[in-house]
Amino acid sequence: PLTLTLTLTSAHKHELPCKHLTLYYHDILFNGTNQANATSTLISNSAPLGSFNFSNFVVFDDPVTSDRLLTSPPVARAQGFYFYDMKTDFNAWFAFTLVFNSGKYKGTINIMGADIIGQKARDLSVVGGTGDFFMARGITTLRTDAFQGWAYFRLRMDVKLYECY
Amino acid sequence: PLTLTLTLTSAHKHELPCKHLTLYYHDILFNGTNQANATSTLISNSAPLGSFNFSNFVVFDDPVTSDRLLTSPPVARAQGFYFYDMKTDFNAWFAFTLVFNSGKYKGTINIMGADIIGQKARDLSVVGGTGDFFMARGITTLRTDAFQGWAYFRLRMDVKLYECY
Amino acid sequence: PLTLTLTLTSAHKHELPCKHLTLYYHDILFNGTNQANATSTLISNSAPLGSFNFSNFVVFDDPVTSDRLLTSPPVARAQGFYFYDMKTDFNAWFAFTLVFNSGKYKGTINIMGADIIGQKARDLSVVGGTGDFFMARGITTLRTDAFQGWAYFRLRMDVKLYECY
Repeated sequence: PLTLTLTLTSAHKHELPCKHLTLYYHDILFNGTNQANATSTLISNSAPLGSFNFSNFVVFDDPVTSDRLLTSPPVARAQGFYFYDMKTDFNAWFAFTLVFNSGKYKGTINIMGADIIGQKARDLSVVGGTGDFFMARGITTLRTDAFQGWAYFRLRMDVKLYECY
Repeated sequence: PLTLTLTLTSAHKHELPCKHLTLYYHDILFNGTNQANATSTLISNSAPLGSFNFSNFVVFDDPVTSDRLLTSPPVARAQGFYFYDMKTDFNAWFAFTLVFNSGKYKGTINIMGADIIGQKARDLSVVGGTGDFFMARGITTLRTDAFQGWAYFRLRMDVKLYECY
Repeated sequence: PLTLTLTLTSAHKHELPCKHLTLYYHDILFNGTNQANATSTLISNSAPLGSFNFSNFVVFDDPVTSDRLLTSPPVARAQGFYFYDMKTDFNAWFAFTLVFNSGKYKGTINIMGADIIGQKARDLSVVGGTGDFFMARGITTLRTDAFQGWAYFRLRMDVKLYECY
């Protein structure tokens, strides 16, 4: 293989992604009685710091669809966690894996970053991938698409890869 | 330094890794009485969602050896966490650091991703490294090598780096 | 875009970072009564394994300043978590996002890795970034700059990016 000494400095900032997936993430928190429908569950039981759930920590195995309908066949699962982390507003932090196992894609995309809920669109990092997404890097933009308190929320995810192998 | 505008698109998918380490990870969960031997401990105490430990969250400082023997001298520590996240089967999610501090290697490798236990081999992402593994990226393949319920489990880890500096 | 088959092998190890930020991270743990000042909170309530807090898991929204003073105007927030993970000494693991939203920088830097507290300087991985730090990669070196038990600690962070877009 070639061996180069170089610094990647001007590559992708204003370029189009080499791959762009638009997906919808659906989260239904376990409330003690909805075991059949719940897709996530709280693991912390400390008293929150402030009035915006700071300390609530949730692990999830959430369906991901290509349209907004919770009832559509999932194209992936999102497996990971989020927690709330602000005293003065709703604000969260996510790390998770998109697990694809369909005819179209097999593989995973790994994502982490702050979910600054007060912003309409917030960017997390795609830090790696496997299978069809081998070594992927990029950005995932989250937008809240529906919010029904603890009962249900839906995020639109735009997964934009800028390094594709 | 050179400044290039390029998209990495065809590099490594079918190439050999620039580095390949085969390691074994040993986990002994704290059960309240095995403090001398335990290498990990549960931090959540919520009731699981379903019958497969969904919500159980474990932090660990596990020995990593180059052969299968728990009693072999560790070549690294694995420090991080896993949690179970599925209602219908055992399934987990990991993030951790391999910490090397031996004659052979000094430095760390950072790993995260889904551990889809139902698959024989599952790939996580190597998202970074330090020291001898400065800026590493790649894939870590996990295989369950021994499983004795809560008492002990062992994973074979094949750490394959495709970007080496 | 160009399509190259190459292996990055000799790039940055001995080169200067393309960007270097020196920052200070301030953490004040919630103790049940300091809600006005606290910036982080414990989410686990399991008994620690051993005498060094192994199992204590903390989520935070911490101010980050460009000098050592807690009272200086923050240049970023650090949002994420750490936990202790060793039986025989204080040792921790971090994952977090530096959130910049000032005149100088807008965007985020995502960081994870082991905080081997027994070492004077310890390196974590910068695994991604967004906005002004789009697709960043590198190393963050942590040094304990002040430690007052649970009440307050301060870390010096040297964020060194070796891939800048």
